[in-house]
Amino acid sequence: MNKIEIMPVMGLPIIKEEADLGELISKAAERQGTPIQEGDIIVVTHVAVSKAEGNIINLDKIVPSPFAMTIAKEMNKDPALIEVILRESNSIIRMGNGHLITETKHGLICANAGVDRSNIPGERKVAPLPKDPDLSARRIRQRIKEVTGKDVAVLISDTHGRALRRGQINIAIGIAGIKPIRDRRGETDLFGYTLRIKQTAIADELCSAAELVIGQANEGIPVAIIRGYPYQKTEEASLKDLLWPKEKALFI
Amino acid sequence: MNKIEIMPVMGLPIIKEEADLGELISKAAERQGTPIQEGDIIVVTHVAVSKAEGNIINLDKIVPSPFAMTIAKEMNKDPALIEVILRESNSIIRMGNGHLITETKHGLICANAGVDRSNIPGERKVAPLPKDPDLSARRIRQRIKEVTGKDVAVLISDTHGRALRRGQINIAIGIAGIKPIRDRRGETDLFGYTLRIKQTAIADELCSAAELVIGQANEGIPVAIIRGYPYQKTEEASLKDLLWPKEKALFI
Repeated sequence: MNKIEIMPVMGLPIIKEEADLGELISKAAERQGTPIQEGDIIVVTHVAVSKAEGNIINLDKIVPSPFAMTIAKEMNKDPALIEVILRESNSIIRMGNGHLITETKHGLICANAGVDRSNIPGERKVAPLPKDPDLSARRIRQRIKEVTGKDVAVLISDTHGRALRRGQINIAIGIAGIKPIRDRRGETDLFGYTLRIKQTAIADELCSAAELVIGQANEGIPVAIIRGYPYQKTEEASLKDLLWPKEKALFI
Repeated sequence: MNKIEIMPVMGLPIIKEEADLGELISKAAERQGTPIQEGDIIVVTHVAVSKAEGNIINLDKIVPSPFAMTIAKEMNKDPALIEVILRESNSIIRMGNGHLITETKHGLICANAGVDRSNIPGERKVAPLPKDPDLSARRIRQRIKEVTGKDVAVLISDTHGRALRRGQINIAIGIAGIKPIRDRRGETDLFGYTLRIKQTAIADELCSAAELVIGQANEGIPVAIIRGYPYQKTEEASLKDLLWPKEKALFI
């Protein structure tokens, strides 16, 4: 029986600018008696990554544009926050019921361009998504390899709402070392029927699984290790693999 | 460190009509040396449930309506399959690029009303979603309690595409014994910031986590056990908790 384990990485310090996440994670895993192993999948929340990268914005230093002020008034939100969200975005996709859904510069469609207010010291500071989340993931993966000698996969996770369901789940916004979609088209089922449409977004499922331990501690645990999941290695993984080409999207 | 384990339930027979799923799962878990424990979460794929409930449709016995034939021609699909999908649906939400997205009688919005062609013996047979998936989940939970004496949660899972991302993930369509949304509004974060929007759809995250073992065996494993996740018990859980009220949905 191939069991999968999901382990929180405890005892990490509060992440500050220039923190070496790969090293911190490797050492914390070692300290708690679960040293990183070959083939582990390391899931890191985007806020931890943005903090380590110094990608934190002080809303008091933002001058909102007239457009941001109009939207902020319409939505009864902070104009500086709206300005930050718009700067992170290519376009507004939906506005309503207190939600501002945009397409980010990365091509992600999500609420508030992924700009996060929680777990950042200072009520007036926010964390946008990492500038290049795949690169962030690759760097953490590289550092873990240097520190531990182990080849792992790294996923950067974010909490997203869904268009068609209530509640948020965790999905991957940065990917390194793992094929994010398991393409099962052409495989046969129990009775020899050929699967025609199945492309499982395993990177998203792994981030949801990691949240089951990450979400238990008021965000005091920004990292989880998933062990025992056999995945397809690649050096070419990207968030783009998880995005619909616009012309195929039925709901945008 | 509170680790979570995800275990496949191996050695289940091919599920036939009137199969006693609760008993079969309890005994298979026992046989493989991981007997069910208090507080486990049992995730079962909907096809296994529909098969046990005899909810399998032979397309050769379906007479498609003129409307189904029109849509089938437009989409280049089997008219009998389209007829089954329409019978399971309240309304068509989107059509295009080979996808037929409907709202099912349960209020779920998904491709093909959730009607599944794989893992059913006979090329011309399909499995719709269970008629009342919450009731199906409650029955399995009750039987596991009778057989093992243990109080567990049961989730019935299905593979769904997403409106705004490529690839499919697994989500919950039937729920028993567990609160499907963890409402974190009002909790404070690391720095005392009060979370304002977080409602984590943990039932969906649990089904995604379970797929990591279920998906490895060409669907030969329809059940997983998740152990070590502390959840809020309830007798009142329902799929409805995971559905948007229509007036609040921005993408329908």
